[in-house]
Amino acid sequence: MIKAGIIGGTGYTGVELLRLLVAHPEVELHAISSRSEKGRPVADIFPSLRGRIDLAFCDPDEAALERCDVVFAATPNGVAMTHARDLMTAGVRLIDLSADFRLKDADEWGRWYGMTHACPELLQEAVYGLPELNRKQIVDARLIANPGCYPTSVILGFAPLIEAGLVDIKTLIADSKSGVSGAGRGAAVGTLMAETSDSFKAYGVSGHRHLPEIRQALGLVAGSDVGLTFVPHLVPMIRGIESTLYARLSDTSVDLTALYRERYSQEPFVDVMPEGSLPETRSVRGSNEVRIACYRPQDGNTAVILVVEDNLVKGAAGQAVQNMNLMFGLSETLGLQSIALWP
Amino acid sequence: MIKAGIIGGTGYTGVELLRLLVAHPEVELHAISSRSEKGRPVADIFPSLRGRIDLAFCDPDEAALERCDVVFAATPNGVAMTHARDLMTAGVRLIDLSADFRLKDADEWGRWYGMTHACPELLQEAVYGLPELNRKQIVDARLIANPGCYPTSVILGFAPLIEAGLVDIKTLIADSKSGVSGAGRGAAVGTLMAETSDSFKAYGVSGHRHLPEIRQALGLVAGSDVGLTFVPHLVPMIRGIESTLYARLSDTSVDLTALYRERYSQEPFVDVMPEGSLPETRSVRGSNEVRIACYRPQDGNTAVILVVEDNLVKGAAGQAVQNMNLMFGLSETLGLQSIALWP
Amino acid sequence: MIKAGIIGGTGYTGVELLRLLVAHPEVELHAISSRSEKGRPVADIFPSLRGRIDLAFCDPDEAALERCDVVFAATPNGVAMTHARDLMTAGVRLIDLSADFRLKDADEWGRWYGMTHACPELLQEAVYGLPELNRKQIVDARLIANPGCYPTSVILGFAPLIEAGLVDIKTLIADSKSGVSGAGRGAAVGTLMAETSDSFKAYGVSGHRHLPEIRQALGLVAGSDVGLTFVPHLVPMIRGIESTLYARLSDTSVDLTALYRERYSQEPFVDVMPEGSLPETRSVRGSNEVRIACYRPQDGNTAVILVVEDNLVKGAAGQAVQNMNLMFGLSETLGLQSIALWP
Amino acid sequence: MIKAGIIGGTGYTGVELLRLLVAHPEVELHAISSRSEKGRPVADIFPSLRGRIDLAFCDPDEAALERCDVVFAATPNGVAMTHARDLMTAGVRLIDLSADFRLKDADEWGRWYGMTHACPELLQEAVYGLPELNRKQIVDARLIANPGCYPTSVILGFAPLIEAGLVDIKTLIADSKSGVSGAGRGAAVGTLMAETSDSFKAYGVSGHRHLPEIRQALGLVAGSDVGLTFVPHLVPMIRGIESTLYARLSDTSVDLTALYRERYSQEPFVDVMPEGSLPETRSVRGSNEVRIACYRPQDGNTAVILVVEDNLVKGAAGQAVQNMNLMFGLSETLGLQSIALWP
Repeated sequence: MIKAGIIGGTGYTGVELLRLLVAHPEVELHAISSRSEKGRPVADIFPSLRGRIDLAFCDPDEAALERCDVVFAATPNGVAMTHARDLMTAGVRLIDLSADFRLKDADEWGRWYGMTHACPELLQEAVYGLPELNRKQIVDARLIANPGCYPTSVILGFAPLIEAGLVDIKTLIADSKSGVSGAGRGAAVGTLMAETSDSFKAYGVSGHRHLPEIRQALGLVAGSDVGLTFVPHLVPMIRGIESTLYARLSDTSVDLTALYRERYSQEPFVDVMPEGSLPETRSVRGSNEVRIACYRPQDGNTAVILVVEDNLVKGAAGQAVQNMNLMFGLSETLGLQSIALWP
Repeated sequence: MIKAGIIGGTGYTGVELLRLLVAHPEVELHAISSRSEKGRPVADIFPSLRGRIDLAFCDPDEAALERCDVVFAATPNGVAMTHARDLMTAGVRLIDLSADFRLKDADEWGRWYGMTHACPELLQEAVYGLPELNRKQIVDARLIANPGCYPTSVILGFAPLIEAGLVDIKTLIADSKSGVSGAGRGAAVGTLMAETSDSFKAYGVSGHRHLPEIRQALGLVAGSDVGLTFVPHLVPMIRGIESTLYARLSDTSVDLTALYRERYSQEPFVDVMPEGSLPETRSVRGSNEVRIACYRPQDGNTAVILVVEDNLVKGAAGQAVQNMNLMFGLSETLGLQSIALWP
Repeated sequence: MIKAGIIGGTGYTGVELLRLLVAHPEVELHAISSRSEKGRPVADIFPSLRGRIDLAFCDPDEAALERCDVVFAATPNGVAMTHARDLMTAGVRLIDLSADFRLKDADEWGRWYGMTHACPELLQEAVYGLPELNRKQIVDARLIANPGCYPTSVILGFAPLIEAGLVDIKTLIADSKSGVSGAGRGAAVGTLMAETSDSFKAYGVSGHRHLPEIRQALGLVAGSDVGLTFVPHLVPMIRGIESTLYARLSDTSVDLTALYRERYSQEPFVDVMPEGSLPETRSVRGSNEVRIACYRPQDGNTAVILVVEDNLVKGAAGQAVQNMNLMFGLSETLGLQSIALWP
Repeated sequence: MIKAGIIGGTGYTGVELLRLLVAHPEVELHAISSRSEKGRPVADIFPSLRGRIDLAFCDPDEAALERCDVVFAATPNGVAMTHARDLMTAGVRLIDLSADFRLKDADEWGRWYGMTHACPELLQEAVYGLPELNRKQIVDARLIANPGCYPTSVILGFAPLIEAGLVDIKTLIADSKSGVSGAGRGAAVGTLMAETSDSFKAYGVSGHRHLPEIRQALGLVAGSDVGLTFVPHLVPMIRGIESTLYARLSDTSVDLTALYRERYSQEPFVDVMPEGSLPETRSVRGSNEVRIACYRPQDGNTAVILVVEDNLVKGAAGQAVQNMNLMFGLSETLGLQSIALWP
């Protein structure tokens, strides 16, 4: 059994991690910390877990995380980086679901996240935990930077085109849409139901923190800098991300669906759908799958790639468990096989 | 392995049965029939099942259901009763998720459902499949009338009070609210998103088909006829039923929460919450649990019982699988332990 | 032109008042105050008002409210009572949309609202602004206690039965459901979209502040204390209240729909629907109407009354404008004739 | 008073027309036809209109539409074109809210709409009723092709850039999102609440009927053919369209917001928001306004234009009334000044 700890379990990625880990046959949950809720039974805050988990939130300082085999950080940005050194020293592997270790350049990280990085020496070692790109490095990693929710959908959607050298990498466009759970569980007027329901809007148009993360990952795929316009939008739904990706094809003879099928043929969580399919976010609600459909409208030279995922599963907690499975030599799909809730 | 068949799998109870049975470790899915969709792969209609199920819908006449150990009917009312005799004759056990075998009186059934019952001789034998009331009979049943969604919540909510003889059984009130999946997957103006979203209404006030079903079950608990006012409402959400139950107490000294805890202490799927709890339907989204909270507002003589369930799980497909587990000697919770999706 | 001021305009009743008053042909908006947003243009916070209103929020101390003919308080509970004396002294009429002047008994008010009343001497004078009950007093009132959203629906729904002496006033039940705008525009985890969407729950079961308000009003109608069980629920929609009311009839020969039609025949904003109707909250979305339908299920002795309103219009800002129209001798419906948005 | 008739008033554009025309001070509603609902009072189907309209639906053949000054067709595609000749002959002006007269080329129309055009000789005369582009022609028009919902947002969003010659017109991208009312009031599984709520998807990717309409209009603006990739999406909300438009700038020195401000400075229904604004569809819920915000992310050469409208108002019925106002010499904003419902 893998002894697992969670730092900061009161948010949506935290409760989703709990849902997955409680049901995981090879995981024993050692501790879950929260400064604000310490002492309170987890099932008190999340009644969905009543009868499934007996733990109470504990103070992070009393969590004895050094006794864990793996620790998941489901904290706000800026917290995991203060724990990383101690955990590494104690030989504990860290899967960070926040953004602390996603960018390789500490200065760029500082500009986007508005603070000085507390642990820059680990940035190079940290492995960007997207198994479809970095499976081998993940297996041996001590420190995983679990990808952001938008980046997972955008990177998986563009990678086959870029790897195949088929598109102009300077004019990529990602028009992404997310459910409101992506905004987190913090009290805020902007994400009240009365403010977000029955409405739709773009946000972060002038610059969203996931932009440099996507550019870094796609730049590594391309071998050079990519130009990307990324516009996120808020959808009046709880879970789900859909990214509609646009790229200019240099070669219009390619069979896009076949290309994607081939690229992802061995991937347990990437489903390339038949031509003409329209992926719906609900088809992955609660599951770790990504579904992709490829189009070339009017037989022109614009590729349109549709990607859906559950932002809390493949976009966060599910991917973290997938990484854990790889790191501990388990079947990659263990504990991740629940079927999407439909309807 | 239990060989299972499904008649009529294109509705919401059908796809929910598929979600549960595909993941059930002791079930092998033999056939799933649909006249309208025969020949079409199941995962074509329900993309959430892509990669999980290879079956195509087949014509009911070619389904060879007599080779099954158990058949689930997820058909509109009036269909299962035309299959029941043949299945019984072939030694196949039938779990009917429609209303065909829920009422003991064929005439009353005919009045509420607007047709003549095709198989009245099996009505007495049919066991009302609510394990918390009828577990023993279920174990040996050939034919299960799987309870309606509303009745499950109302009966489980009132039963402890009635069994204990604590309330006036002539003035019971059940104010129930359901998500729109309860209305089924048929094309209808009334359940379009533009008609039901961002709105709320009562319906079926002058008489809903679940009324005689609830009265019959509670009457058996009470040992005499009960008087019940039942008003269902449509909630702009997909899944979930909440029933707020009102009963006049003859004895106000009783500790309601303790009474319910005692009554349901051995029940794996009934969670009596602590005093002051406010059960939310999302706390059982996708799970087979019922959560109950008990109140006596202003220390008066009105008991208020709050009950939540997922109408497609404990209110339909999950309860059907629970019945199957009992009928085949399996652990009652097998295949039913997934945790509710929160948020 | 009536010179109107608003204290505390940043909440949902505030913006709804603005929507109505900006379009009201006899109102000139003098000032709108907000301590937290002073100096900020109103249309900055509420872009729906861009091009319709030039005012900025001002400090309440600099609002020169004494120059107004009427002031609306759309403040949290506890604020209007600190302004009332000064406004009365200055000859300004006050319509308080908060709860400060709704209860006649200062001690009871203090128990429910958790503070000492700052202006108890005005409680007796304050007129409960429900025109269908108190039209005459409203006309001459200096100080209006604008009714709560739930109370408006429950009182209008029960009044005809009680006035006619047809029901047992000791066993009234009001099962009410509200959209989330009723919870206000304050940042809170409990009303985030990810917490409230796609779910349903009861709340305030052991005692909601609108309970004493309803009991007081119905007690005045009845001429003696009433017994009421009131259970509010949260519906995943923005606007709208539906109350399903239950009462035991002492006389079952009465034609309920005819009774209600007669009672409300002169009321411009109460629509008694034909028998068999199912009022939907969306039928009053954005309008000042209340729609009511009457039932006696199974010809029994329980009356079931369905009432819908828009909680922000007839349940708050619209009713306030209706009161203003009465107080200033205008047509009662002026500025209140917009048709509900459907769908 | 303008005598107005409506053909086919049972859909969402029909009921929205009713809402607007009933409240319009210069319109007298003469008749509203529906073959399926003839004889039934309008307010029976649309209770929001109870007390506001006494008309019943009539058979189109008995509507005496020739006595009208103007007729609105709110019919499915293919119906208005069978009425146009008779109305023209009778001297009645026709505002067609369907797609029958939107394309100038009858063959192209036939290909996209799957039928032969019944009245091709009127296609050239028909004026595309987008006042911001064609105000002068609208004034004198006998026959208005009222623009589609998506096209209104996309054309108004791209026009200033194209008119100014600032963008590559061969690589335009419109990523549009619509609420479900855009799919109409017809019974269909795909738009059931249980199918569309809490989910998001693209559709019509390989070719949507609004594509040729947009291309035709923008081609006229540009003076040559434009290249456009148009991807519509379905949002789980009732009303509203948001279009996120992408164009490659040939000149990055331009102040986009100033350009749009200038272009639309005289337009009563186009609101160019300040830099950094994030238009929300709810800010135009129920109103005839379009709100636009302009971006040039990361100071690059991609313009991102955000456009929101209410698909049933500016995208359909409101624009039709705006056209009528122009055609009959009324103030363009008459009857169209209601403020958006917020929240």
